Amino acid sequence: MNICLMGFGAVGQGVAKAISLKKKEIKENFGFDIKIVAVADSSGSAISQEGLNAELLLETKVNTGSVSNYPQFGNNDIKGMDVLDSADYDCLVEATPTNIENGEPAKSLTLKAFTDKKDVVTSNKGHLALFFSELINEANKNKVQFKFEASVGGAMPILNFVEETLPSSKPESIIGILNGTTNYILSRMTSEGSSYKNTLEESQQLGIAETDPTQDVEGIDAACKTVILANSLLGIDCAYNDVEVTGISKISSEAIELASKEGYFIKLIAEVSKNALKVSPRLVKKNSPYALEGTLNMATVKTDLADDVTVVGKGAGSLETASAILTDIINVFKK
Amino acid sequence: MNICLMGFGAVGQGVAKAISLKKKEIKENFGFDIKIVAVADSSGSAISQEGLNAELLLETKVNTGSVSNYPQFGNNDIKGMDVLDSADYDCLVEATPTNIENGEPAKSLTLKAFTDKKDVVTSNKGHLALFFSELINEANKNKVQFKFEASVGGAMPILNFVEETLPSSKPESIIGILNGTTNYILSRMTSEGSSYKNTLEESQQLGIAETDPTQDVEGIDAACKTVILANSLLGIDCAYNDVEVTGISKISSEAIELASKEGYFIKLIAEVSKNALKVSPRLVKKNSPYALEGTLNMATVKTDLADDVTVVGKGAGSLETASAILTDIINVFKK
Repeated sequence: MNICLMGFGAVGQGVAKAISLKKKEIKENFGFDIKIVAVADSSGSAISQEGLNAELLLETKVNTGSVSNYPQFGNNDIKGMDVLDSADYDCLVEATPTNIENGEPAKSLTLKAFTDKKDVVTSNKGHLALFFSELINEANKNKVQFKFEASVGGAMPILNFVEETLPSSKPESIIGILNGTTNYILSRMTSEGSSYKNTLEESQQLGIAETDPTQDVEGIDAACKTVILANSLLGIDCAYNDVEVTGISKISSEAIELASKEGYFIKLIAEVSKNALKVSPRLVKKNSPYALEGTLNMATVKTDLADDVTVVGKGAGSLETASAILTDIINVFKK
Repeated sequence: MNICLMGFGAVGQGVAKAISLKKKEIKENFGFDIKIVAVADSSGSAISQEGLNAELLLETKVNTGSVSNYPQFGNNDIKGMDVLDSADYDCLVEATPTNIENGEPAKSLTLKAFTDKKDVVTSNKGHLALFFSELINEANKNKVQFKFEASVGGAMPILNFVEETLPSSKPESIIGILNGTTNYILSRMTSEGSSYKNTLEESQQLGIAETDPTQDVEGIDAACKTVILANSLLGIDCAYNDVEVTGISKISSEAIELASKEGYFIKLIAEVSKNALKVSPRLVKKNSPYALEGTLNMATVKTDLADDVTVVGKGAGSLETASAILTDIINVFKK
């Protein structure tokens, strides 16, 4: 399977690393070869039908800042959409940054791949949160596969989880912690009794929160994931604007302390059901599956037959997120 | 798909109920008909190639104590192995009681079904814990499918979870709470400060612990599940006697209180890895995925790429366990 990898930030680099680590095992267990035939970042690309060396791609990126400096096959001329025309690939792995304004460049790249009859695997949330049904319809129309496990919980399986391990049950709602940064901030505020402002700064120093933390702390990231879960698992036709969103920036250490005394934590909870599409800080019982510390993500799926089933996993991390992308690639091959 | 259902206790009845509830949905979503053509309990059986009515089976069992009184098609003559010869079925659903002495009657029923080229789905632990590799070899030799998701965590998906949602990662170990009764007892001892003896009695009154609680409280049930996980997910060829087992009957309320003061709970933890096959009471950190209350089961799978991934679900319950069996039946059909 020839991969065209668009975007070579943390996730894209994780994919290269994961492929390098697992190439042999995948060949043995599933009987197919993974070859990276094209990689692009914002400065240019590297393209070779013989296959690019994953380790050398990573080395080139770290040492020179761009894959366009890859020996022999790197270039500064072929960028963006043109990469898709210049490489002969089977599956687009789309790992450009999430853009919640207009979903670009993910949207255009994905639609072009569909038109070219290519399967697409993505970790991107923006285009899915804005244009979910359009994208699915185009994939179906072109009879290609479109998979996005990594877009919701990073390494926490949730889309494949419901589809593959709970086919006998009908999911009725999903309630979860879908953002690791806010979970970390709230957990630290609880354990340290510190203020929101100080804890955010500390998280930024640790690299857990971004310099502009808005997407995380205002619940935007979790709201995108809410839209993806609603559409894909509950069949609710909705987009980003349908979600009621409240972030955590107004939470005081006093509120957290008070909750704690009564046996509760405050968590940023996403609720996905026919009745509510909502991201907001809520009280959760201590010793419940929601009472998770650190940057972990979790989701409880309420079902008719199996009752509540919960998954917990790392919501971020380069290699962890890449593991979900690699699982999608394997599933694309299997079907 | 014609089902022969052996055993009509809590799990078997749950399967009938689940089929009755989901027959139509399964037909719509997966395109096949499920028909129960034979059901047996210890008194006799009911057999009809036209298909038995699930609701009437349940009614007959509740009102008369045995499916052998099912109108027209019930009988007291055809029992046990003979049922398999009298019904024309595709898939044996084996739900007889777990027997950790010799695995019977599950073992003989299963092997006969294999020889007759039938697929088998089971919730039984005994024969798997004693003769895992023999059973798998026979299934492979006869080119039939053998599925046992329900045998480990009831409605908590763990076997399908690792195989279907984490194919890109290699599981390195599994650590979990695999017995709901002991989790309930330890949780109550923690919250109430009560003694083991009193809490066990209370659990028996509530129907959570059995009259003879040995299999649960001495860790035997969790040890059987340990064997199944070790063989099926980690490729460790082992049987029940290879597991080091300590139960919870010696845990004092003082020990629990002391642990709690230091920020820990005591839980009956199963560890499954190349280095250890072990069921024993252990300290787990509060606010970790292991700090679960009630009768819930959980398992954390340590993997190479996705890091730790955890599932939580109901380890018991008639309909919940049946949901796992129905998932296996769907997967048997799909492959």
